[in-house]
Amino acid sequence: MSKGTVVLAYSGGLDTSCILVWLKEQGYDVITYLANIGQDEDFEAAQKKAESLGAKKVFIEDLRAEFVEDFIWPAVQANAVYEDRYLLGTAVARPCIARRQVEIARREGAHFVSHGATGKGNDQIRFELTCYALYPEVKVSLLYESGILENPKSRAPADLYLMTKNPEDSPSVPDVLEIEFKNGVPVKVTNVKDSKVTSSPLDIFSYLNDIGGKHGVGRIDIVENRFIGMKSRGIYETPGGTILLKAHLDIETFTMDKEVRRIKQGLGIKFSELVYNGFWDSPECDFVRHCITKSQENVEGKVQLSVFKGQVYILGRDSPTSLYNEELVSMDVQGDYDPCDASGFIRINAVRLREHHRLQGLSSTKQ
Amino acid sequence: MSKGTVVLAYSGGLDTSCILVWLKEQGYDVITYLANIGQDEDFEAAQKKAESLGAKKVFIEDLRAEFVEDFIWPAVQANAVYEDRYLLGTAVARPCIARRQVEIARREGAHFVSHGATGKGNDQIRFELTCYALYPEVKVSLLYESGILENPKSRAPADLYLMTKNPEDSPSVPDVLEIEFKNGVPVKVTNVKDSKVTSSPLDIFSYLNDIGGKHGVGRIDIVENRFIGMKSRGIYETPGGTILLKAHLDIETFTMDKEVRRIKQGLGIKFSELVYNGFWDSPECDFVRHCITKSQENVEGKVQLSVFKGQVYILGRDSPTSLYNEELVSMDVQGDYDPCDASGFIRINAVRLREHHRLQGLSSTKQ
Amino acid sequence: MSKGTVVLAYSGGLDTSCILVWLKEQGYDVITYLANIGQDEDFEAAQKKAESLGAKKVFIEDLRAEFVEDFIWPAVQANAVYEDRYLLGTAVARPCIARRQVEIARREGAHFVSHGATGKGNDQIRFELTCYALYPEVKVSLLYESGILENPKSRAPADLYLMTKNPEDSPSVPDVLEIEFKNGVPVKVTNVKDSKVTSSPLDIFSYLNDIGGKHGVGRIDIVENRFIGMKSRGIYETPGGTILLKAHLDIETFTMDKEVRRIKQGLGIKFSELVYNGFWDSPECDFVRHCITKSQENVEGKVQLSVFKGQVYILGRDSPTSLYNEELVSMDVQGDYDPCDASGFIRINAVRLREHHRLQGLSSTKQ
Amino acid sequence: MSKGTVVLAYSGGLDTSCILVWLKEQGYDVITYLANIGQDEDFEAAQKKAESLGAKKVFIEDLRAEFVEDFIWPAVQANAVYEDRYLLGTAVARPCIARRQVEIARREGAHFVSHGATGKGNDQIRFELTCYALYPEVKVSLLYESGILENPKSRAPADLYLMTKNPEDSPSVPDVLEIEFKNGVPVKVTNVKDSKVTSSPLDIFSYLNDIGGKHGVGRIDIVENRFIGMKSRGIYETPGGTILLKAHLDIETFTMDKEVRRIKQGLGIKFSELVYNGFWDSPECDFVRHCITKSQENVEGKVQLSVFKGQVYILGRDSPTSLYNEELVSMDVQGDYDPCDASGFIRINAVRLREHHRLQGLSSTKQ
Repeated sequence: MSKGTVVLAYSGGLDTSCILVWLKEQGYDVITYLANIGQDEDFEAAQKKAESLGAKKVFIEDLRAEFVEDFIWPAVQANAVYEDRYLLGTAVARPCIARRQVEIARREGAHFVSHGATGKGNDQIRFELTCYALYPEVKVSLLYESGILENPKSRAPADLYLMTKNPEDSPSVPDVLEIEFKNGVPVKVTNVKDSKVTSSPLDIFSYLNDIGGKHGVGRIDIVENRFIGMKSRGIYETPGGTILLKAHLDIETFTMDKEVRRIKQGLGIKFSELVYNGFWDSPECDFVRHCITKSQENVEGKVQLSVFKGQVYILGRDSPTSLYNEELVSMDVQGDYDPCDASGFIRINAVRLREHHRLQGLSSTKQ
Repeated sequence: MSKGTVVLAYSGGLDTSCILVWLKEQGYDVITYLANIGQDEDFEAAQKKAESLGAKKVFIEDLRAEFVEDFIWPAVQANAVYEDRYLLGTAVARPCIARRQVEIARREGAHFVSHGATGKGNDQIRFELTCYALYPEVKVSLLYESGILENPKSRAPADLYLMTKNPEDSPSVPDVLEIEFKNGVPVKVTNVKDSKVTSSPLDIFSYLNDIGGKHGVGRIDIVENRFIGMKSRGIYETPGGTILLKAHLDIETFTMDKEVRRIKQGLGIKFSELVYNGFWDSPECDFVRHCITKSQENVEGKVQLSVFKGQVYILGRDSPTSLYNEELVSMDVQGDYDPCDASGFIRINAVRLREHHRLQGLSSTKQ
Repeated sequence: MSKGTVVLAYSGGLDTSCILVWLKEQGYDVITYLANIGQDEDFEAAQKKAESLGAKKVFIEDLRAEFVEDFIWPAVQANAVYEDRYLLGTAVARPCIARRQVEIARREGAHFVSHGATGKGNDQIRFELTCYALYPEVKVSLLYESGILENPKSRAPADLYLMTKNPEDSPSVPDVLEIEFKNGVPVKVTNVKDSKVTSSPLDIFSYLNDIGGKHGVGRIDIVENRFIGMKSRGIYETPGGTILLKAHLDIETFTMDKEVRRIKQGLGIKFSELVYNGFWDSPECDFVRHCITKSQENVEGKVQLSVFKGQVYILGRDSPTSLYNEELVSMDVQGDYDPCDASGFIRINAVRLREHHRLQGLSSTKQ
Repeated sequence: MSKGTVVLAYSGGLDTSCILVWLKEQGYDVITYLANIGQDEDFEAAQKKAESLGAKKVFIEDLRAEFVEDFIWPAVQANAVYEDRYLLGTAVARPCIARRQVEIARREGAHFVSHGATGKGNDQIRFELTCYALYPEVKVSLLYESGILENPKSRAPADLYLMTKNPEDSPSVPDVLEIEFKNGVPVKVTNVKDSKVTSSPLDIFSYLNDIGGKHGVGRIDIVENRFIGMKSRGIYETPGGTILLKAHLDIETFTMDKEVRRIKQGLGIKFSELVYNGFWDSPECDFVRHCITKSQENVEGKVQLSVFKGQVYILGRDSPTSLYNEELVSMDVQGDYDPCDASGFIRINAVRLREHHRLQGLSSTKQ
């Protein structure tokens, strides 16, 4: 008699294949589930392998479009960066994958979910928190895989990178792109050189990954702080995400009020920490996302940039909702702006500084 | 009879020469003061020009070492970046220049200071706030120069950049550097290729400017929010600062506790805003600098990086005070770390998420 | 010929009467405007006085309901307190009054507004920022009144308080109220003793002012930091606001997720600073208000409290959207909660602390 | 043969007596440890009981002075309040008690510590995190006690309060105190009525507890969010702490620069969360405490206040380091302050607001 049904997040690799076999040996029925979020994988081979190992059902789910629209776009709006450097690629993938897994488990009446994420890493936490949040009664069966001993001093091997060319070998001529934003997300990308245009979210993101990858954009080698408090080394490549971060930062500062931007910057840091720690599906992350989305209402316009040898250079920007006022900023046009006002502004700001100085003078006299 | 003495921050250029003449015509004695903070300038020619225009005294002050040690190093410790992109080069120069100007004014018994900074810009504010903070009774005489009408859509002309090569024309072979930090500031830079070593603050900063400039590092084209609330376009180049920011971020995350880092990140953002707005000499900036300095006590070690085509790539890091624990992070070595603890940690973190879900279920049932 | 029309915020007192006369002498037509936001004032007498002094038109506007609903309620939702103590009574009144004044000026074709707020105070700033924000082309004509020299050491005279009884003379029997909230604002107040019920916003606020005043609630004597950087002493009484703050804090913590609360607490502090500084009508205050309103969606339920001798004591609370779970928190019911999870949670939280200790041990060994 | 030695935090009550017996039955040697932090307890009786139950050694440690100086004073400096209401009395006691327990364990060669704190509460976490932080190799043996089912709707029974009188029964004549601060901590308390003076930290804190208790100050009934994410009800009384919080807030705002205060306020909130969650002995809490201590350098002077019927009323303050400037704030003395500056200050602050309005106008025209 079966102990129940497990939905296993299956990769087709050795680790999760072992888990599949082991779960069957323990007396469970196993449904394997493989999410396609755009990774380079032979999905058909994985399906056959799962079936041959005794999976009761095999689900291969194309999540590419919803991954871009529901998970990457909010991260773009937030300028999401963890600890000033990590663009959270894997971190936003995890709740996307787990969300569908929970849907399958509910639909198939499975009370268990399983995954191959490691016991010391963040991915286990991200996976399980999402499962508990969306399916509180679920049970998680665990298993642990092995990793490689990392010395943060040694250089990363060159063949580690899959999506990006080595900048030393990348083209010696830049690509120039125009990215159009609406509500803080890209709605159209035009390659100025060959006039190629992409406009659906998935197409845009794939295309920027291609262009960024071709020019070696978005490689980082960092030591990061995991949620559980230990430091670990991470080697990441985020070609499309890096282009979008730079472009979005530019159009956002161009169109958003200065003080709204400042508050939103704090919310973006909070969002990044929440996503990194696995709290995508939490009341606070819902709340922060809502606030960030609100802040993006006027973030629209076009950014021109060039992509070259691992770098992204902003060339210019234009927007119907810009708060940039050429006349106001110009020194030739006086307009409404009275220089006396600036002097008054400065003197009022100095009131406090002078008082502080006065007090320091008094206290040094006393001594 | 003289109306009094003015100490004028003099550049040798047209604008401040006009101010010099005008001040004399108004009946002031004028002392010119020219600060050398490392800019490319013919100081001798400027001195002669000032004398020929009737300056009573001419001061040319070499502030290069104190600029690096007292102003740039604290910015490096803070990872100072304004609005996520601007590295605050000019912003940290201004209080350095004004501080000496105030010293000269006090020493020479001058009650007035003057400068050529523009009326709509930040530099006027930075200059004057420092003067009022350090010499509360001082009077500032103002004058305004003209700027160029800026369209944020048009590309910046290539000849705008003075310190950095165009990355398209930069060397096709990287330089590899090892930067050693102590207390969060660089104490030694070694070029791995030619074994060149620099070790005084001024030498280190000049050398990194050279290397960064040669490889086209640190160019940005941004729209920023000025203190007075208007948006303006800025084209900046910060070759040495960009290398230091990347290296410091790396060694800091490697050696600093996660939660201290998080608090310090917030203080660094605050520091950047204060410096941008001209509040270097304020009680709050003193306080923030003190806290940031405290946080850097264990920030030491070596970072290896390559500089190439406008980019800086971290290659590895090593430190005697690292909080990175190879054994702890390894999957092969279990050590103290019990996988059950992680499950408990996750389930406790999920308590709140499940409660939230439960409540949402109740409220949707009710409706 | 008239120089134009001024809308003057008129109080009926000496200062603004002088301004009225002076403006007429300068050749302006003057429209007086007196806002009723619930203060104790003889509006009819003020009207006659303005007419007799030559006001072209006299507007007396009953803003009491919109003051409570549009200005006080958002402050209640925010738990708005400036510098930990000041409940911002006057600060929220100012934009309410200026908003209507600007409406009148636009409607009457007046290009000028005027007020009697002092030149060193916050009220001038609050008033004028609102005017500029809502009517950018408006011109403000100024005039300054005198205040009283304040020694922060001397006690405030007892007759300074208008709304609140001295707690020493207040009733020796408490009143017990039940306040019902919906979306974070009070919708019904019941006096448990005499069963009196109030339910419109204006009635609720007036009633709480009465009850609070009767029991001497909400008096404070503080030194505060004005926007312009100087410290000033303030003696305030906010009887109704104090009761609402305590009740709202209670029902909010009872019904709001812990981490949402934490983020919202930061937004509330920001909101308080913005309101204090006069930025009610600013993009950032709009944004913060929007976020805070969002956070209040589930803030509903009833709070019981007693009001007695200057204090408010929370007695209990109840809510259909509470996140309080009696079973979960109980020690008798184990339920889903496994004590092992808590141990795991603690040990994972200690990973970082132990590493820190290990490093400190190493560094002390070295020395 | 013994399994080893356990140091047990012993209260003399039923729960920890059971743990003592159970540990002996399991084969451990048990050392009991009872900390005197000022609670009302028969220490001699507890000692006898522990001995009679078979404790190998009995330690009764008077921690009263170090509790006040090392734990309460930093909390006073921080204005430590959790979730806007809870003054963290128990939370600061826990690391104080655990610190000595760890010292005893190390000295006595014990590898185990134990306590009677409950499995669902914060105290377990606070206790254990301190032990792991200060004695990483220690092992914690656990046991769980029972609590009482709490309904947050029902009123707290009157006999729950041990230190404070019911305000309804408290004296009808206030006590008036003058509290003198230096470096942000109280150094002297004078009762204005009877001229009684106290000056050592322990005497000051005990005396303020007496006076506050006599007048019913510092009772709260709240629902709070525990670290582990569940909500629980707490009934607390903090008579001395409440008086100190009010007095410290007052002298701090009087003497501290506005912007330093704002940054320090954020650090104080962080400190409160850390202490509540049990992270007193952590690198981030060390860091925050250091920063807060730095901010208190000029926080000195005298505060006069009255204590009456559950309330504390500030009456006045005086300080040699005050930043309050009577001349500057006065309306009669113009001094350095030019009204034109205020107008300029306001108009510059309005630049951004007007731009925003202009843009909104444009966008509404378009539609």
